[in-house]
Amino acid sequence: MDPTSIDNGHTGKGLLFVISSVSGGGKTTLISKLMENMSDLQLSVSHTTRKPRPGEVEGQDYQFIPGDRFAKMVSEGLFLEWAEVYGQCYGTSGSTVDSITGRGLDAILDIDVQGAMQVKRKRSDAILVFLLPPGEEEQERRLRARGTESDPDMNVRLEAARQELAFVDEYHYSVLNDKLSDAVDAVSSIIRAERCRNRRSTSQ
Amino acid sequence: MDPTSIDNGHTGKGLLFVISSVSGGGKTTLISKLMENMSDLQLSVSHTTRKPRPGEVEGQDYQFIPGDRFAKMVSEGLFLEWAEVYGQCYGTSGSTVDSITGRGLDAILDIDVQGAMQVKRKRSDAILVFLLPPGEEEQERRLRARGTESDPDMNVRLEAARQELAFVDEYHYSVLNDKLSDAVDAVSSIIRAERCRNRRSTSQ
Repeated sequence: MDPTSIDNGHTGKGLLFVISSVSGGGKTTLISKLMENMSDLQLSVSHTTRKPRPGEVEGQDYQFIPGDRFAKMVSEGLFLEWAEVYGQCYGTSGSTVDSITGRGLDAILDIDVQGAMQVKRKRSDAILVFLLPPGEEEQERRLRARGTESDPDMNVRLEAARQELAFVDEYHYSVLNDKLSDAVDAVSSIIRAERCRNRRSTSQ
Repeated sequence: MDPTSIDNGHTGKGLLFVISSVSGGGKTTLISKLMENMSDLQLSVSHTTRKPRPGEVEGQDYQFIPGDRFAKMVSEGLFLEWAEVYGQCYGTSGSTVDSITGRGLDAILDIDVQGAMQVKRKRSDAILVFLLPPGEEEQERRLRARGTESDPDMNVRLEAARQELAFVDEYHYSVLNDKLSDAVDAVSSIIRAERCRNRRSTSQ
């Protein structure tokens, strides 16, 4: 038996990773570091109906599309997940993800708990990773350090974070985001390990 | 919610890893390297009825016990797996593994396919890793390099290796043991990733 013929279920096709955290959980910073460190990994670019902010690049930060086109994509079931936030729509299209994994790269989605649960229902092979905040004090410090939140907003965010933590068990992995480099190492290990995982195993 | 209260199912208790390969698959070398590189990992010492060879240390290489005591342990169901090889018995006792994991260390078993299947039945939480030989030529070269096999023996071993490869799908992970350092990195990643895995997830 030629070992190269052993199909572990993802030969040639990339995997789909979903990374979530509570607000202020340091998800975006971690993903940037992760992308620097790992090859064969690509961040999936979301569609949005909001206008580009100064410096944002079409196709790199977002795929900026008009509201009617977004609505049509929703009605055609083209999104793995989507949400409306403050009157603007954001979504991850299945074809964006498929174009990444189809080239043998692993796709990574930077999405919140609600989005992750939608992806999980549509793509049972998605691998979900939750970044745990080191504790409420640290999380509050991070939110304050952003400086973009007024106090009432921050309280809303902290309450949302508490709600989001209830979803940890729905994720395959949880990584404590205490020290950034340790968390990056842990997520890198998860990605490397999943690349070795036998998808056909009866005991998953 | 205090994130330290989130129980990912192995808090405080170590995990059980089983590493197998075909004969000549380079398993023992890899495990030695792995032990050098990773902390909180301990190789489980097997019981055997055979006599110590020169240089072998009781409790380190094996736990050497008389045949009647081994038989009693078998009848009492104290082994997670055991086998008779060339008239001598070898086994992994459950209490040896539990004493490792109970101290918060991850236990690692260096056992063959038959043993791994026994462990899997008794400990459904065991994590099984199969080292894939880089190919039959390389495997044959490794077997020949050992120099302890006569040619007829080697053919028997090669045929056994082919049989063993049929069990790959019963393992959770398969790692190509082409370049040793890459294989060590891959198995280290698997161990790190499993330490982050949510055991209670409904989607395992």
